[in-house]
Amino acid sequence: MFMTTRSQSEVDHVAAAGFAEVYAPVKPYLDDLDAFLQSQVGELEPEVQEHVRYVFGHSGKRLRPMLVAYSGWEGPGQTRAQDLIKLGSVIELVHLATLVHDDILDEADTRHRQETAAKKFGPAAAVLIGDVLFSHALKLAAEFDTNEICRSVARATSRVCAGEIAQTYQRGEVNYSREFYFRVIQLKTAELFEVACRLGAKVAGYSNEFSEAAGLFGRHVGIAYQIFDDLVDLYADESMIGKTLGTDLDKGKFTLPLLLLLEKLPAEEREALMERFNAGDKTVAADFTARLHDFPIFDEVVKAFEHQLSLATDAVAPFAELPPVASMQKIADLVRAQLGRIA
Amino acid sequence: MFMTTRSQSEVDHVAAAGFAEVYAPVKPYLDDLDAFLQSQVGELEPEVQEHVRYVFGHSGKRLRPMLVAYSGWEGPGQTRAQDLIKLGSVIELVHLATLVHDDILDEADTRHRQETAAKKFGPAAAVLIGDVLFSHALKLAAEFDTNEICRSVARATSRVCAGEIAQTYQRGEVNYSREFYFRVIQLKTAELFEVACRLGAKVAGYSNEFSEAAGLFGRHVGIAYQIFDDLVDLYADESMIGKTLGTDLDKGKFTLPLLLLLEKLPAEEREALMERFNAGDKTVAADFTARLHDFPIFDEVVKAFEHQLSLATDAVAPFAELPPVASMQKIADLVRAQLGRIA
Repeated sequence: MFMTTRSQSEVDHVAAAGFAEVYAPVKPYLDDLDAFLQSQVGELEPEVQEHVRYVFGHSGKRLRPMLVAYSGWEGPGQTRAQDLIKLGSVIELVHLATLVHDDILDEADTRHRQETAAKKFGPAAAVLIGDVLFSHALKLAAEFDTNEICRSVARATSRVCAGEIAQTYQRGEVNYSREFYFRVIQLKTAELFEVACRLGAKVAGYSNEFSEAAGLFGRHVGIAYQIFDDLVDLYADESMIGKTLGTDLDKGKFTLPLLLLLEKLPAEEREALMERFNAGDKTVAADFTARLHDFPIFDEVVKAFEHQLSLATDAVAPFAELPPVASMQKIADLVRAQLGRIA
Repeated sequence: MFMTTRSQSEVDHVAAAGFAEVYAPVKPYLDDLDAFLQSQVGELEPEVQEHVRYVFGHSGKRLRPMLVAYSGWEGPGQTRAQDLIKLGSVIELVHLATLVHDDILDEADTRHRQETAAKKFGPAAAVLIGDVLFSHALKLAAEFDTNEICRSVARATSRVCAGEIAQTYQRGEVNYSREFYFRVIQLKTAELFEVACRLGAKVAGYSNEFSEAAGLFGRHVGIAYQIFDDLVDLYADESMIGKTLGTDLDKGKFTLPLLLLLEKLPAEEREALMERFNAGDKTVAADFTARLHDFPIFDEVVKAFEHQLSLATDAVAPFAELPPVASMQKIADLVRAQLGRIA
C-alpha cells in the first residue's frame, strides 16, 4: 500500500487553519464582492432575479475572486479597489454559469449540499439562468476601460466549454493519453484561474510582465488543484476506490492515477483491459482497482501535483519583491498542505 | 369571417419578389459574412469545430445581418466594411446561440428543415455549443475599439434570456395582459433587431442621433415581425386554428389574437374561460376558437402590426436624406407586404 493516513480531524484542522490564514486578509474583499453580486441582482430583468439570487445563495469557496484579490494586492494603480471587486465578480459569475450548465449535463441534484439550479428550476430554466449569468458577466467586463477584460473572459469561457465538450463527447474510443488529460484540465479549470490572476494583476496596475507571470501562477495552481481533486476522488476513502473508478469509467473519464497505471502495465495487459473497456465490460473496474495497488501511482500523482506547484511559484519568483508574491507562495503552500488530508 | 384570401402562389410570388429586391443589394455583404463565419470556425478549439460548422450549415434568412448592413449603408466612416461584417457576425452568432438553446427548451427536432443541434448532438452538447457561440460572439465584440459593442451585445443577450424565462416560466396563473405580451416580444425578439440597427449605424460612423433612431426602427420592425409571426401561426391555415390555439394554450402562450379576444369578451365569460384554462381544462381551446370568429380580431392585430411599422418608419423619417433610410422604408414595406400571404 502506497499511502499513509493520519486522523481525519487532525488533517482537516490543519487544512482549515491553512485556509483561514489565507482567506483572512481577503475577507473584507470577499464580503464586498458578495455585496456587489447581491446588488447586481437588481440590475437584471425582474423575471430572472429569483433564480439568480438562488445561485448566489450558496457560499462557494470564492477561490477565483481570492486569486484576483491576491494577484492585485497593493497594486500600483490608484483607486482600484472597486475594479478588483468587479473583476472578481465577473470571473465568479462565469464560474457560476459554467457550474449551472455543468450540473445540467451531469444531471446533478446537489452542489455544495444545496439543490442545483437544474434540479430546482428544471434543466431548461437552468440553461437560461446560466446564459443570464454569463451575459451579465460580459456586460460587467465591458464596463472596464480596456477591451482586454471582455476579450479574455469571452475567450476563457469559450475554452471552458470546449474542455467540457472534449471531455464529455469523445468520439469512438476514449482518449486516455496524458496529453488529453492535461489539455482538458487546461481548458476546463486552469483557464479561469489563469485569467483571474493575470487580469487581477493587470487591473491593479502591475506590469505586463508580472501579469503574465501571475497568469502562469494561476494556470499551474489550477492544474495542481485539479490533479489533487482527481486524486482525492479516488484515494480519500480506500474502501470506495473501486466504486469511484467504476463511475469514472462509466463516464469515460480517465484521471491521472488511471492514466499512469495504464502507462505502467505491460502492453498486452493494457490492450486487453482497454479492449474490454471499449466493449463495455463493466468488470474492468475491479481489475484496474486491484492493479492500482501494485504500483506507486499515488506517489507519482503527488509528484505531478508538486511539479505544477513548483511551476506556479517559479513563475512569480523573479518578482518576489512585489506584494502579491508572498501571498501567492502561501497559496501554493496551502494547496500543497491539502495533501495532508489524504496522505 | 373577418379574413380574405387570394391564391397562395400569387402572394408567395409577391413576397418572394419583395424579399429578393431587398436582399439583392446586400448579397455581397451576406456572402462575405458567411465566409467570415466559416473562417471563424478555425479560431475555435478543435473539439467544437464540427458542432459549430453544423450550426452554421443551415441557411437562415440572416435577417439581423441584413439590418446591420442597411443601417450602416454608405456610412460616413472610412473603411468600415470589415467592421460591419464582423458586427453582423456577432449578432448572428448571438441569434444562433439563442436558437440552439431554445431548441433544447422546446425539445425541437428540426429547424429550417434540418435536425436541430439538440437533436443531432443531444441536449447536453447543445448547451455547450450555444455557450461556445455566445462566447465567440462576445470575443469578436471585444475586438472593436469601443466597449459599446461588447456592452450592448452582452446586455441584449441577457434580455433575450430574460424574455425566454418570462415566457416559459410563469408562476401561478398565466399572465395574459397586453403589457406582458409586448414585454416578452421586446426582450426576446425586438432587442436584437434594435441592437443590430443601432450598432450598424454607429459602427458605420453615423451620428448618435441617427443610430438611436435606427435602433428604434429595428425595435419596432422586430415587434411587427413577431406580431405577424404570431398572426400567421394562427390564421394562415384556417382549418388549423383550433389545433394551433390548443398547442399555444398548452404552453401557456397567449399571443395577441387571443389577448384581444379576452379583452372583448364579456367579463363573466372571460373569467369562466380563464378559470377553466387555469384548472387545466383542455376543451377551452375549442371555445376560444369559436369565439375568435365573432370579433374583428384579425383586423385589429393587423392594425397593431401596422402601428409598429409606422413607429418604425416615423423614427427614421427625420433622417430621410441619409442613405440607410430609403432601404429601411423598403424593409418596412416588405414586412407589410408579408400580410398578403394571409389576407
